[in-house]
Amino acid sequence: MARHTFRCPLRWADMDAFGHVNNVTFLRYLEEARIDFMFRVTPGQGGVSFAGGAVVARHEIDYLRPLVHRHEPVTIETWVSDITAASMTVKYEVKDEGRLYARASTVVVPYNLAEQRPRRITAEEKAFLERYLDDGAVVA
Amino acid sequence: MARHTFRCPLRWADMDAFGHVNNVTFLRYLEEARIDFMFRVTPGQGGVSFAGGAVVARHEIDYLRPLVHRHEPVTIETWVSDITAASMTVKYEVKDEGRLYARASTVVVPYNLAEQRPRRITAEEKAFLERYLDDGAVVA
Amino acid sequence: MARHTFRCPLRWADMDAFGHVNNVTFLRYLEEARIDFMFRVTPGQGGVSFAGGAVVARHEIDYLRPLVHRHEPVTIETWVSDITAASMTVKYEVKDEGRLYARASTVVVPYNLAEQRPRRITAEEKAFLERYLDDGAVVA
Amino acid sequence: MARHTFRCPLRWADMDAFGHVNNVTFLRYLEEARIDFMFRVTPGQGGVSFAGGAVVARHEIDYLRPLVHRHEPVTIETWVSDITAASMTVKYEVKDEGRLYARASTVVVPYNLAEQRPRRITAEEKAFLERYLDDGAVVA
Repeated sequence: MARHTFRCPLRWADMDAFGHVNNVTFLRYLEEARIDFMFRVTPGQGGVSFAGGAVVARHEIDYLRPLVHRHEPVTIETWVSDITAASMTVKYEVKDEGRLYARASTVVVPYNLAEQRPRRITAEEKAFLERYLDDGAVVA
Repeated sequence: MARHTFRCPLRWADMDAFGHVNNVTFLRYLEEARIDFMFRVTPGQGGVSFAGGAVVARHEIDYLRPLVHRHEPVTIETWVSDITAASMTVKYEVKDEGRLYARASTVVVPYNLAEQRPRRITAEEKAFLERYLDDGAVVA
Repeated sequence: MARHTFRCPLRWADMDAFGHVNNVTFLRYLEEARIDFMFRVTPGQGGVSFAGGAVVARHEIDYLRPLVHRHEPVTIETWVSDITAASMTVKYEVKDEGRLYARASTVVVPYNLAEQRPRRITAEEKAFLERYLDDGAVVA
Repeated sequence: MARHTFRCPLRWADMDAFGHVNNVTFLRYLEEARIDFMFRVTPGQGGVSFAGGAVVARHEIDYLRPLVHRHEPVTIETWVSDITAASMTVKYEVKDEGRLYARASTVVVPYNLAEQRPRRITAEEKAFLERYLDDGAVVA
């Protein structure tokens, strides 16, 4: 299984009054990682782009240790745990050398913005996603 | 079972480039509802305050329909589904007259900021939380 | 001269690690006040709406005292200091009973989103804006 | 005159419903550039750090062209235009190859967080800042 790696820069204002990166901001980091994984068109590498529209149907996130602002990015590893006809589940780890800050997953539904309705995953998209599929995952 | 009701004002910039309130911003709304529920000291009404420190250990959120900015607040109903010795689970519905935008839950851990470590829920806090406890909930 | 009054709710996460409302967030508050003043269609009251498009060309803001999160909104008074053929200057005071947190001004350019270009202020818009015009202001 | 250069990463959610980076978010970019310039301790290079406390007293910003999200950072050049006994003015250009998105300036006041009051600029800080001083600037 391949994992997509994104180096996510922090901003100083990501910290809240408790002096830690606010829990909501972690979801912003996941969005950045997901966009880097799913929106970036990488022709010639078999990449596909969901930039035309994708809707978040569900998030789950577990916070494992506090994160404080620093100038170095955190690493977000992203992979896929489920692919159905019209949705996929993206999993993440927000980490550092040896430290894990959060584990999360997001159910994403491809969306046709022009027609304002969900759409099915194409065969090309499925082939792209399967390269990042969790070893134990079941594909519908 | 009582539910805490919070009227959550939207901001225009809560919308993203797709013209909907961004999924991450819903978590910000939940934070506002949770703070209104848990941080506000209401002496004489048996209220308690976790403003001294509380850490989010986990979020789950399901998005049910898109939300667009308007001048009227959304309603967030909040209640409690689990109370353990050192954590509680807060549940939410983000709604309108007849429309449900999201359902979510958060595991909150009371925290002693001075000593930088989790702390147990006090008897007074437990009594306050139990007033908002889901009818089917089991209290440890 | 009339002033538009907007009661701006704070969010807990508006505070930064220094425990004050972050200076950038004040501009978000100004946006909310400006939208309440300029985007809200109030037919029958002679109101007009720039919701169809308006671009910020310039901000100036002076911070006068720190603001800490509380459950009560701050008051933002808004008025107009300059009206030209294709721009207006909006002035603001962010305040409380007896305390002034910030003074600011924004140059706004009405914008035709469909044609992606600035447009002139209409006679009806000018009449609306003039009701909020600073007494000493010069109108081009 | 030297200029400090900061490569500022954008986030997708920096865009608002008009599909452009929101005007308020530019101030967030300036904060990042300013922190990179002023908070980073660079011993051995004569650097100093205002991370111990610094308060924004004033911003001015002119928006010159719209900015749309992309994966490449924007460049923010930062320098100093005024140094007084207890404040400095930081100037910025937000730019790209050949395109200028915004020009801005910020008056920063060094702050003693422990004593909760402004403090004077030290001789070492002044020497550091003077290396980035605008050629035409007058130093008090």
